[in-house]
Amino acid sequence: MIYLDHHSATRPCTAALERMTPYLQDHWGASFAPHRMGQELIAALETRYQMIYDLVNAAPTDQFVFTSSGAEAVNQVFWSVFVEKARKEGKCHIIISELEDAPTMQCAKRLEELGCYIKIAPQKSNGQIDLEKLKELINPRTALISVTMAHGLTGVIQPVEEIIQLAKEKGVLLHLDATYAIGKYPFSFESDYLTFSGDRIHSVKGSGALFAKATAPLSPFILGGNEQGTLRGGSFDIPSFMALSAAAQQSLLYLDMMALEVVRLRDLFETEVKASVLYKDSFRLPNTTTLIFDKVHQEALLYILNRKGIYASIGGSYASHLGRIDESAISFSLSRMTTEDEIRRAAGIINEAVKQLQKISEDL
Amino acid sequence: MIYLDHHSATRPCTAALERMTPYLQDHWGASFAPHRMGQELIAALETRYQMIYDLVNAAPTDQFVFTSSGAEAVNQVFWSVFVEKARKEGKCHIIISELEDAPTMQCAKRLEELGCYIKIAPQKSNGQIDLEKLKELINPRTALISVTMAHGLTGVIQPVEEIIQLAKEKGVLLHLDATYAIGKYPFSFESDYLTFSGDRIHSVKGSGALFAKATAPLSPFILGGNEQGTLRGGSFDIPSFMALSAAAQQSLLYLDMMALEVVRLRDLFETEVKASVLYKDSFRLPNTTTLIFDKVHQEALLYILNRKGIYASIGGSYASHLGRIDESAISFSLSRMTTEDEIRRAAGIINEAVKQLQKISEDL
Repeated sequence: MIYLDHHSATRPCTAALERMTPYLQDHWGASFAPHRMGQELIAALETRYQMIYDLVNAAPTDQFVFTSSGAEAVNQVFWSVFVEKARKEGKCHIIISELEDAPTMQCAKRLEELGCYIKIAPQKSNGQIDLEKLKELINPRTALISVTMAHGLTGVIQPVEEIIQLAKEKGVLLHLDATYAIGKYPFSFESDYLTFSGDRIHSVKGSGALFAKATAPLSPFILGGNEQGTLRGGSFDIPSFMALSAAAQQSLLYLDMMALEVVRLRDLFETEVKASVLYKDSFRLPNTTTLIFDKVHQEALLYILNRKGIYASIGGSYASHLGRIDESAISFSLSRMTTEDEIRRAAGIINEAVKQLQKISEDL
Repeated sequence: MIYLDHHSATRPCTAALERMTPYLQDHWGASFAPHRMGQELIAALETRYQMIYDLVNAAPTDQFVFTSSGAEAVNQVFWSVFVEKARKEGKCHIIISELEDAPTMQCAKRLEELGCYIKIAPQKSNGQIDLEKLKELINPRTALISVTMAHGLTGVIQPVEEIIQLAKEKGVLLHLDATYAIGKYPFSFESDYLTFSGDRIHSVKGSGALFAKATAPLSPFILGGNEQGTLRGGSFDIPSFMALSAAAQQSLLYLDMMALEVVRLRDLFETEVKASVLYKDSFRLPNTTTLIFDKVHQEALLYILNRKGIYASIGGSYASHLGRIDESAISFSLSRMTTEDEIRRAAGIINEAVKQLQKISEDL
């Protein structure tokens, strides 16, 4: 197996699993319990938050909620804006981009059903959000701009600095979805909200993160008790939180490797595979490439690669779908666990498969 | 340590952890991925749902959502009723009982803020919900009755059969919160909704369950993609689901032990400890007792017991609080892992501590 679908899921790293295990086996108490089983957990939690803060260079005053997924974190952002801005201040206008994944798309639709107005900023021909169009969509009742920092299939990084600047100038809250950007390159938490999922940075499923500036409205989404300072109800899933903290620490340590070694392997892959690279000249994530195969349908190729043990993506239920961009394209995403041998073998198998498919295509 | 606080958290059983581990270490793919890492997961899931269905004797036509907690499941019930009944049909009247925990209380309050009307049914002197008063609260616009099946501190079991009958007669949806009842005695899913948390039946934190009849409205609460048949967004936390399925299977196997051995130990505990039993003559959970200690304040006793390694509960942030019932009471909850030796040792330590506190109280 050669796994090149790291934007769908990543292998939990040893550090995450080792950090998690004692909290599954021994320290399994509820952190709200009024006895030592609870108290010892509270103490153990304190030093671990810092590792997640460090990964996005968050300030001590920034708020943090541990969630069950990046999707849940996105839901909480939209719910907070609905409760605090739309209902209380009448600011019921929300802007997203056409590059968003299902959580943002569906949360926007929910708010539309509850009386908000949603506008969708288009992308330009380079895979980036059209800033001019985005700017035109802002009006005095705009409460929130919610955009992804980087696209999970093409890897194109959005003009985040300009969007932060624009939101500040216009006095609009900004949510950046860091699902695909997190752990791929260094950045600081400078928007009003930032969300990501642990299972894309070698943490376990069931671990997500929401950061909010102290000035940004933040309401609980899942209600039920006052763990996490009333910001999220239900039992605090401490084992998964521990895994996320360890994975975040590792991700920070490996940022250099992303910028040097992973990008080298990605470039090698782009050289070795006979295909053209989508958005080759755009500012892209170091671990991601979308390749376009002449005279080949993406699903036919994906099917063959799957049988040969190479796992890649064309998007799907959760993420955007490549078919909208190019039906001959497949997205490959590497991680720090990807090896040069895997890349060379994958390239050979892909070239062979593509040749076969092109031959069939020509014979028809 | 003698742990008698099983309504706050339970030790994950070996079966749950063993079932979970391969999905943390090896089969960590996303179930939505369009390749073998995803497909093999879908296949592995199928046989595991049945174990959760079996625990509550659910029918194949019943709907199920795997959630991150019992609290999230309660949130989804209330949200579904809000979307489908309150907004679409104008049925915006909801009844809960005064015995509910934070998730139900807070979800009801949220719906009140969104325009619903909430009524709270009182309890009788035996710790059960007052059925006559509950009946009087129902009106033609009542959409939902939401009550707990059993109280987590007193262990009093509610007149569930009568409430199911009442809801059916009046054509009102019924949600039963099975958080404390699950795995303690056999029952079948006969209401419209049933929710519980895995961490009370020796599964891991981050595992919860929502059952809904095919006829009951069910909307996603966490949005984002179409895993779990569009009923819950975000990556499906398969390791935790696997843990829940194994814990459910074990819970079903141990139901007899609950009815025979755990209840024997609970009764032994009630005999050995010099205290009176709250709601002794009520129909109660086999693993739960609330003891009232003459001339002793609950917090003073809980503090001493904590220092001596006996962990019990007076309720708190998430659950109801015993102080509202009796300030001299402490709740103890056993599990199938509790031993006779623990019970005898705990009784001795408690009697000693109570004697000390009563002496201090008399000296004052």
